[in-house]
Amino acid sequence: MNEKYIAVVDLGGTKILSAIISTEGKILSRAKTSTVKNKKDKINEVFIRIAETINSAIDKSQLKSDEIDAIVLGIPGSVNPNNGIVYLAPNLGWRNINVIEKLSKYFSTKILIENDANLGTLGIANFGIAKNVKNFIALFIGTGIGAGLYINGELYRGKNFAAGEIGHIIVNSNGIKCGCGNYGCFETEASRTAIARMIREEIKNGRKSIVTKLTQNLYVIKSGIIKEAIMQKDKVTIKAVKYSSKKIGFVIGNLLNLLDIEMVVLAGGVTEAIGSFLLKEIKKEVKRVALNSNYKGFKIKLSKLKDDSALFGGLALYKNYKENKKIN
Amino acid sequence: MNEKYIAVVDLGGTKILSAIISTEGKILSRAKTSTVKNKKDKINEVFIRIAETINSAIDKSQLKSDEIDAIVLGIPGSVNPNNGIVYLAPNLGWRNINVIEKLSKYFSTKILIENDANLGTLGIANFGIAKNVKNFIALFIGTGIGAGLYINGELYRGKNFAAGEIGHIIVNSNGIKCGCGNYGCFETEASRTAIARMIREEIKNGRKSIVTKLTQNLYVIKSGIIKEAIMQKDKVTIKAVKYSSKKIGFVIGNLLNLLDIEMVVLAGGVTEAIGSFLLKEIKKEVKRVALNSNYKGFKIKLSKLKDDSALFGGLALYKNYKENKKIN
Repeated sequence: MNEKYIAVVDLGGTKILSAIISTEGKILSRAKTSTVKNKKDKINEVFIRIAETINSAIDKSQLKSDEIDAIVLGIPGSVNPNNGIVYLAPNLGWRNINVIEKLSKYFSTKILIENDANLGTLGIANFGIAKNVKNFIALFIGTGIGAGLYINGELYRGKNFAAGEIGHIIVNSNGIKCGCGNYGCFETEASRTAIARMIREEIKNGRKSIVTKLTQNLYVIKSGIIKEAIMQKDKVTIKAVKYSSKKIGFVIGNLLNLLDIEMVVLAGGVTEAIGSFLLKEIKKEVKRVALNSNYKGFKIKLSKLKDDSALFGGLALYKNYKENKKIN
Repeated sequence: MNEKYIAVVDLGGTKILSAIISTEGKILSRAKTSTVKNKKDKINEVFIRIAETINSAIDKSQLKSDEIDAIVLGIPGSVNPNNGIVYLAPNLGWRNINVIEKLSKYFSTKILIENDANLGTLGIANFGIAKNVKNFIALFIGTGIGAGLYINGELYRGKNFAAGEIGHIIVNSNGIKCGCGNYGCFETEASRTAIARMIREEIKNGRKSIVTKLTQNLYVIKSGIIKEAIMQKDKVTIKAVKYSSKKIGFVIGNLLNLLDIEMVVLAGGVTEAIGSFLLKEIKKEVKRVALNSNYKGFKIKLSKLKDDSALFGGLALYKNYKENKKIN
């Protein structure tokens, strides 16, 4: 087809990122804003800001509004791409929101929606490291942990569009309480939040760490700080990251026994910052946990699309829609 | 199509079961023998006995050999149905065995092979409790624990035909050593073997149990004995079974978070004997572990095909082959 342009929105609990991308995969412009600016903000205010970032990205791209052929939204929650409804998005406080209806007040163009991890997974499957891989899992490790499941060459979404909630697999029955109410969930043991907590606790217990010099507030230990601390061989940080890596390897090994997939792709903020450091420990644990029959031929790779996997996923979803006139 | 007949063989580590079934689903006859009669037996002897049970089942059915349109084998291991090769079957001691080639020495009819849990899953999907269910997992709980994965309306086999090795998901890092080399695998915590071990240990530790009266040999505690002990309210047995049920529920809850499947079907020897007793405890634990978003609409069911799920699965595989001229 002729080159066309779409807007892709990555909607998170804290930030809204919009970008304009061509069907050839060229990123023309980006815009971002905070999801919530005021605690009194209602859902409608969030939609106003989504529209603002889209318009801002369009302006920066120097295209006209009517040159945008579709808008694709990635949303952190259970998303039904067929009817446009978000059933549950805990980080946004949304329940049964018809996103397409709400956003249609601002745009007359076609609107597509998808779960954010699924969108990232589509990007990795179509434009990333898992191109031509039929069965893989993309693991997004950041503030929390989520996954996208790519089975038999397509996204697997689950009956309630809630598949991939790998962050709430229980990996340590003696672990701390998770936001979901259970104890020792994967994401309370291995996310950036978990690594930051472990570092903080060690420091509180009197261990010395370079992290105290890298941040003013121990409650804000971002991936960049973790990376810097590792590079400076900070023992407290290395210990926390190794613990996390081992849990990630443990989950991947178990997944491999269950699903005998071809590949796991590591993505998300933590992976981008310290992926190669994580990888060594993860591989060791996967090898320990996985059966030989399932380990054979298995690959763990770092995503190379960085923050843009969802952006390319939006393009993939759009292309699929144009070719088939349906999403699934 | 006109009514036709096939032979289905359920090949286990201890027994070979053969049956003749019509395309209408009528079971005409059955025959069985031991897999290994002599420790010196080689693989070829096992194939001789497979052929014997098939011929014995044909004789009993009063059909003639040339009225059998196909032979379907279910094999406990990683099975490639396309090329007829069993890559690995630990319980049989097989590695890279071309089953179709070997069995073709005895029969000129079409031979199809499949992993045993997959065959059972096909039976449950086509003739059992999961008819018309698009995404489910069949859990076979017996001497060990295995699973068949039915995704998007078809069997999911994995890259090495080794998907469904759920028995080797690690559920208790402080658990005992499994045959696979790891510690605390699901099947060392929740299979019949595990239940029997827990009962035996309690008795050795001096606790009273009716089981001592139900068997002469505490190393042979079959499902029927476990059932009888539960009916007689034996506390030692009930405790062991509850422990097992809780682990089963734990795994199912985690699976549900990951895969958001519609249904889990419980099958296998333990389930047949004490399924309804297991179910209560399992459901409680699933509800605790699963996210509400994924639990909604989820069902756990007992298979009603009993020992015959693989038999009906053989019929399903055959029908699929006849209709599509391929298995996958």
